[in-house]
Amino acid sequence: MPFSYIRITFFFVSLCACSSNSQAPVDRPNFIVIFADDLGYGDLGVYGHPTIRTPHLDRMAAEGLRFTQFYTGASVCTPSRAALLTGRLPVRNGLTDDQIRVLFPPSKGGLPASEVTIPEALQSAGYVSAAIGKWHLGHVPGHFPTEHGFDEYFGIPYSNDMTPTASDWGRAQTYPPLPLMRGTEVIETEPDQRLLTRRYTEESISFIQRNRDRPFFLYLPHTMPHIPIFASDEFEGTSTRGLYGDVIEEIDWSVGQILDVLRDTGLDRKTLVIFTSDNGPWLTVGFAGGTAGLLRDGKGTTWEGGMRVPTIAWWPGMIPAGQTTQSLGTTMDLMPTMLELAGASRPDDRIYDGADLMPVLLDPAAEVRKGIYYYRGAQLWAARKGPWKIHYVTRSAYVGDQPVEHEPPLLFHLGRDPGERFNLAEEHPEVILELQEMVDAHLTELVRAPSQLKIPEWND
Amino acid sequence: MPFSYIRITFFFVSLCACSSNSQAPVDRPNFIVIFADDLGYGDLGVYGHPTIRTPHLDRMAAEGLRFTQFYTGASVCTPSRAALLTGRLPVRNGLTDDQIRVLFPPSKGGLPASEVTIPEALQSAGYVSAAIGKWHLGHVPGHFPTEHGFDEYFGIPYSNDMTPTASDWGRAQTYPPLPLMRGTEVIETEPDQRLLTRRYTEESISFIQRNRDRPFFLYLPHTMPHIPIFASDEFEGTSTRGLYGDVIEEIDWSVGQILDVLRDTGLDRKTLVIFTSDNGPWLTVGFAGGTAGLLRDGKGTTWEGGMRVPTIAWWPGMIPAGQTTQSLGTTMDLMPTMLELAGASRPDDRIYDGADLMPVLLDPAAEVRKGIYYYRGAQLWAARKGPWKIHYVTRSAYVGDQPVEHEPPLLFHLGRDPGERFNLAEEHPEVILELQEMVDAHLTELVRAPSQLKIPEWND
Repeated sequence: MPFSYIRITFFFVSLCACSSNSQAPVDRPNFIVIFADDLGYGDLGVYGHPTIRTPHLDRMAAEGLRFTQFYTGASVCTPSRAALLTGRLPVRNGLTDDQIRVLFPPSKGGLPASEVTIPEALQSAGYVSAAIGKWHLGHVPGHFPTEHGFDEYFGIPYSNDMTPTASDWGRAQTYPPLPLMRGTEVIETEPDQRLLTRRYTEESISFIQRNRDRPFFLYLPHTMPHIPIFASDEFEGTSTRGLYGDVIEEIDWSVGQILDVLRDTGLDRKTLVIFTSDNGPWLTVGFAGGTAGLLRDGKGTTWEGGMRVPTIAWWPGMIPAGQTTQSLGTTMDLMPTMLELAGASRPDDRIYDGADLMPVLLDPAAEVRKGIYYYRGAQLWAARKGPWKIHYVTRSAYVGDQPVEHEPPLLFHLGRDPGERFNLAEEHPEVILELQEMVDAHLTELVRAPSQLKIPEWND
Repeated sequence: MPFSYIRITFFFVSLCACSSNSQAPVDRPNFIVIFADDLGYGDLGVYGHPTIRTPHLDRMAAEGLRFTQFYTGASVCTPSRAALLTGRLPVRNGLTDDQIRVLFPPSKGGLPASEVTIPEALQSAGYVSAAIGKWHLGHVPGHFPTEHGFDEYFGIPYSNDMTPTASDWGRAQTYPPLPLMRGTEVIETEPDQRLLTRRYTEESISFIQRNRDRPFFLYLPHTMPHIPIFASDEFEGTSTRGLYGDVIEEIDWSVGQILDVLRDTGLDRKTLVIFTSDNGPWLTVGFAGGTAGLLRDGKGTTWEGGMRVPTIAWWPGMIPAGQTTQSLGTTMDLMPTMLELAGASRPDDRIYDGADLMPVLLDPAAEVRKGIYYYRGAQLWAARKGPWKIHYVTRSAYVGDQPVEHEPPLLFHLGRDPGERFNLAEEHPEVILELQEMVDAHLTELVRAPSQLKIPEWND
């Protein structure tokens, strides 16, 4: 008899006043979110990559829960990070525009002060928080991590190609040297990028060890494998996948180091660790980019390969070991999940886009959300409800460069057709209507925040 | 420090006189080969499929060894089966022609009596053997499984679409009803295909139980998921992947049943079990076909998706648990592996194409073969040496239908580029020369057997 896959509960959280009381079975557990950059759905051993070895992430999955349908809030860096840290679609935060842009060194914008982040919300429950790695939510006063609820910050404030040394793109020549920051201070420029994964790991371990006796939140957004990719001497040249494999295998090593520290300090049974990626693989950069496996296309698109990411949840003793779930999840669900566990609250004066994932973490057959919205910049291009996905507009980051509008929309059944190959729009007009209804309701309540991404001197 | 991936030994077995003396640490272990039909590289949970659940195969991998670079001897049914059972490229057996054909109901040919199969060779070591499932190596007297060394046979002698009831293809209307055979007798016609996986499983369990006190070889080539696909009532409608998922999940259940019987009878520690597939997914049949994951193309092609298959080896207490190997392997390696373990011999008057895989099964970092030849019908279209693959001719089974000759050949690095996206022929002419040398040596010693696949009345 096959395991019966019952959809127990469906509630699509689009407006949620979560002044919650904790029902956490562990008093204020710690939280660690490890966020790779441009890692594709198919880039880990446990997600089927044939030549990248990820024994530590494979073990993390064997001891925890692997998601096969987990999404980011956007298909590029800046809005994806905003979504994770605020639990809200980036179109509500202003970290989108009519293109599909991120913050650049000349940008003066960033995550608005009015937004409430996970670490800010956790403060009321006594948590200490650190961001270690790539920020990319603003790098001028008012937008630094320590101004958004983090007690500590160490890392590079934006992408590692945003320097004249890493790019021959005309505008990049005008950028300042790449800063490495601690708190709000630049402590180095043009740091040796081969050492970034290692240094982030050491900083993370130090943070965990220093805070072992109080609840903490560690947010570890790696700089890698965003291009240009680098690995330390110990990893360079070791993977049959080449440098990209070296880089992923070093991130895998880093995950192993962090889980080992949790085990060694006895914190493993009171720490929820999430490993995921900010968006899909950068398919246009050749060997330096990853793969979305069987999913279609990659970073920068609203095809599945752009926004569905490998995701593993780990909490020994709490999350059952060795499970896989097909339930939907998003990075925007992490905020309500963590706040509920922490017994922390957040303002109820705004719309959130996440749902508490704890039912899924405890039972892979549970479902807590029924839909996904796929935005490209500030425009909704696709939507998913249950297994069905409609595309209003598509654009490939890989082979084409012009948007294509679809009337009627394309319709795919992502359960039967995860690769988005077979358009079923003609066969199922009633499903299109049902999704259209969901989208209409969503867009009716949507208020787009003014874009933070404009760069006046770029004049575009 | 990353796990050091040392290539210890390279020896490419193309001619091997294996009148071996066993060095087997278990006296004459049992062998079970479970052979799915048209299952793609990306179709199992443990190979990254998002909506097909395969908990039993996932567990088999967690307790055993998962191959990421394991190949069949051909990209379609008949020659692939000949390769597995004889340890020789099908072009040597006559089960190829200048097209890419298989045996059909009007065929009078089959595996020649001069070929020595695994069960024939094992007889000298006292093994009893059964074939349960799809044969497809001849269905007229002289070619039946029991005339090729198997003591028992139960199953359908060719593909399940070769009947007027399953196909509207003109010629199929002239076919006899689909036979279900025991030994050389037809015991039913047009059996309920929904029950085939279950019946094969029951027959397999019976064979294991009846032979628990003597060494045995069970060859279980499933009829599924070759189209038309069917699942039993207990599985139909249960997978989010639709009927194809139901079918794979029933095969997964079957694997679980067989491993359970081995555990229950205490035979698990003296039985080598191999799970693999006869070729890649049938991409042109829509929802009824599988996926090769990130590999290019599928069944019928010499792209990786046509001939690289999901493969798991399991032998508790002998094969280390939870390992993945990138070492090359093929179905033609199973014969020398099994014969060496059994202390059985085979004639040394012919060329074999396999290598004893036991070093890899014991140590995933070992390597026992350095190359792969990719034939389409009787023609060599591609070759692999180490990570490098050249294509002389390509043809897609998916989007195109004409062969394309490549001069110079296409060159891919399958370690860095498993999806065969980036042709490096211009950058690495020296690698092309090296592969050309290997291919030349291979073709020089090659003797093509007369084709068994001609059907005079088809006149083609």
